[in-house]
Amino acid sequence: MLHTGIDVLLVTDLINVRYLTGFTGSNAALLVVGTDDEDGGAQRLRDAELAGAADDGDPRTRFCTDGRYTTQAQQEVPDLPVLIDRPCDRALLRRAPDGVVGFEARAVSVADHGALQSTAAQAGAGIELAPTVDLVEGLRAVKDTGEIDLLRRACAIADRALEELIDAGGLRPGRTEREVGLDLDERMRRLGAEGPSFETIVAAGPNSAVPHHRPTGAVLAAGDFVKLDFGATVDGYHSDMTRTFVLGAPADWQRDIYRLVHDAQAAGRAAAVVGATGAQIDAAARDVIAAAGYGPQFSHGLGHGVGLQIHEAPSLARESASIMVPDMCVTVEPGVYLPGRGGVRIEDTGVIRADGYSVLTQTSRELCVLT
Amino acid sequence: MLHTGIDVLLVTDLINVRYLTGFTGSNAALLVVGTDDEDGGAQRLRDAELAGAADDGDPRTRFCTDGRYTTQAQQEVPDLPVLIDRPCDRALLRRAPDGVVGFEARAVSVADHGALQSTAAQAGAGIELAPTVDLVEGLRAVKDTGEIDLLRRACAIADRALEELIDAGGLRPGRTEREVGLDLDERMRRLGAEGPSFETIVAAGPNSAVPHHRPTGAVLAAGDFVKLDFGATVDGYHSDMTRTFVLGAPADWQRDIYRLVHDAQAAGRAAAVVGATGAQIDAAARDVIAAAGYGPQFSHGLGHGVGLQIHEAPSLARESASIMVPDMCVTVEPGVYLPGRGGVRIEDTGVIRADGYSVLTQTSRELCVLT
Repeated sequence: MLHTGIDVLLVTDLINVRYLTGFTGSNAALLVVGTDDEDGGAQRLRDAELAGAADDGDPRTRFCTDGRYTTQAQQEVPDLPVLIDRPCDRALLRRAPDGVVGFEARAVSVADHGALQSTAAQAGAGIELAPTVDLVEGLRAVKDTGEIDLLRRACAIADRALEELIDAGGLRPGRTEREVGLDLDERMRRLGAEGPSFETIVAAGPNSAVPHHRPTGAVLAAGDFVKLDFGATVDGYHSDMTRTFVLGAPADWQRDIYRLVHDAQAAGRAAAVVGATGAQIDAAARDVIAAAGYGPQFSHGLGHGVGLQIHEAPSLARESASIMVPDMCVTVEPGVYLPGRGGVRIEDTGVIRADGYSVLTQTSRELCVLT
Repeated sequence: MLHTGIDVLLVTDLINVRYLTGFTGSNAALLVVGTDDEDGGAQRLRDAELAGAADDGDPRTRFCTDGRYTTQAQQEVPDLPVLIDRPCDRALLRRAPDGVVGFEARAVSVADHGALQSTAAQAGAGIELAPTVDLVEGLRAVKDTGEIDLLRRACAIADRALEELIDAGGLRPGRTEREVGLDLDERMRRLGAEGPSFETIVAAGPNSAVPHHRPTGAVLAAGDFVKLDFGATVDGYHSDMTRTFVLGAPADWQRDIYRLVHDAQAAGRAAAVVGATGAQIDAAARDVIAAAGYGPQFSHGLGHGVGLQIHEAPSLARESASIMVPDMCVTVEPGVYLPGRGGVRIEDTGVIRADGYSVLTQTSRELCVLT
């Protein structure tokens, strides 16, 4: 049995399919058929990932994609039976053995669920659909050595690209946000990234008060905060880092909020330990900012898991009950934003270890004044 | 009434929210409240797009995002009331007037639907949830002048980037697929693209037989087919173009399948007229390929709508009942793939006009032999 009450799991979330099979195309699904083993769902799903299905798993476990990916599926998913058909979810469900078939309730739309129900009805009375939540996501939250290595490489590319950008004088008055973003993206690609983790944020002056600003033609000016939030992807794994700089001599208010965010971020990192909840870690950083009277200006959660998606489990936020276990990878990223003036965010990507939060992003967090 | 039986529409598909409001962030929803007008759903939804809600629409129409986007929402959605709360869908539903509230059945997951049902139940007996399909997608399929202009600019950037790449000798034996992809992406960005429309496909030699190949370290060699499938985004709008080249003198089999795909693509473009169905246009191109005995080697649909998403309505495929109307933007992209040897695809982005298919991508479709 795969999970309490589930005999078969229909995986349709494309990232989950990639995680379990290695397939990187844009359309696929996976049917994982349990066995009579009592070792539970996690191990059985991992077996699919390790292609164990072909060896000691159930031979009815199979992968489905469409005709564009016939060759790619043979290359990327060599050890599972590959079905070429579409829509993949229904094609697999028609081939499911009788029993309770779990589907991913966060990934299956109401419309697709209706189609799956019709397919199940046509298959006779033997298939019962049952919603599941976060089965694969729960596995993904804890990284193995290979995944952490990919995240480390992605973080190193981002660190190095930023270092190169600064060394080349790329952060200077007169350049536009867009030019800086393009420069950073190109450096990451040349250093081996598949691409940026998300649309690189370059926010200068008052724009730095917008937490998720998109680069514009705004020109960097002396005295500005410049906030860079960016990352690299390596083999599908994302890094995520934010640093905020000052162009020229900082004003007192800039020094003050930088120091505040810096200290809050250190408190967050210190609290990111095995056994802590996401809410406790969030509070450790938030309390520092609130104590200085800037609570309302820290308008988002403290951090998030990162891996095959830029945002994934666990969440570090006010109401997060997620409990940290070793080898979870999370960001710690408090910010203070003063509309019309500017804002600061400092963010690292790191790993929860038995001895604390191990930071993967290595760029200095001290106030860097670019002159 | 917004649509048969619907008084209020809860828009949660993020692309649809962007289309109707202009908001470009990563989390938002929109509640469109109908009036007693009998002018139907399309006009009312367009009113939201035109920010008419604030003027002559229902003042209960409102937009919701989270605290990261407070400033951005004020800038991008100035004419609608902005609610800052999360999750956005439930926050808006709690504020919906009594009546039938349509939700987007393709965008709402089974899990979120459960949460919405709970919220509706807490609100009392006055709210009834009802699934809708493709209401906004149907509007999006037909482009207005501003949208076509953005698509034209995105196509022109892709054309120009490819021309530059070739002029610079960037398609030559010895380079890797990855280097060529990076080169093309950087040129598009420098020409004003926000980024590539999707991960640029560069497929050399036998890799060109993989319809959706991802660039690798494979080295381009004399005699290879090199297939480039790529596009640029401008203000969120995507271009999409494929061209296939030969490095050096083509072999007879290369000339033959190139000519075949070329003729099939011309037949597809000629058939892309007002009133035709997606299936008819697909058949016009597919019949050319099938008559030559390569039917099974054309393993995907002929084309797709393109706009704020790289794939959107309408579909040009074997079973597509979509009927072409003026100002739909679609790709036409037949291909023939011979595993282990190579493949050819030729693709344009264009607009359905009263006088036929108006191509936006201008690069020559003739066999280009690079020496």
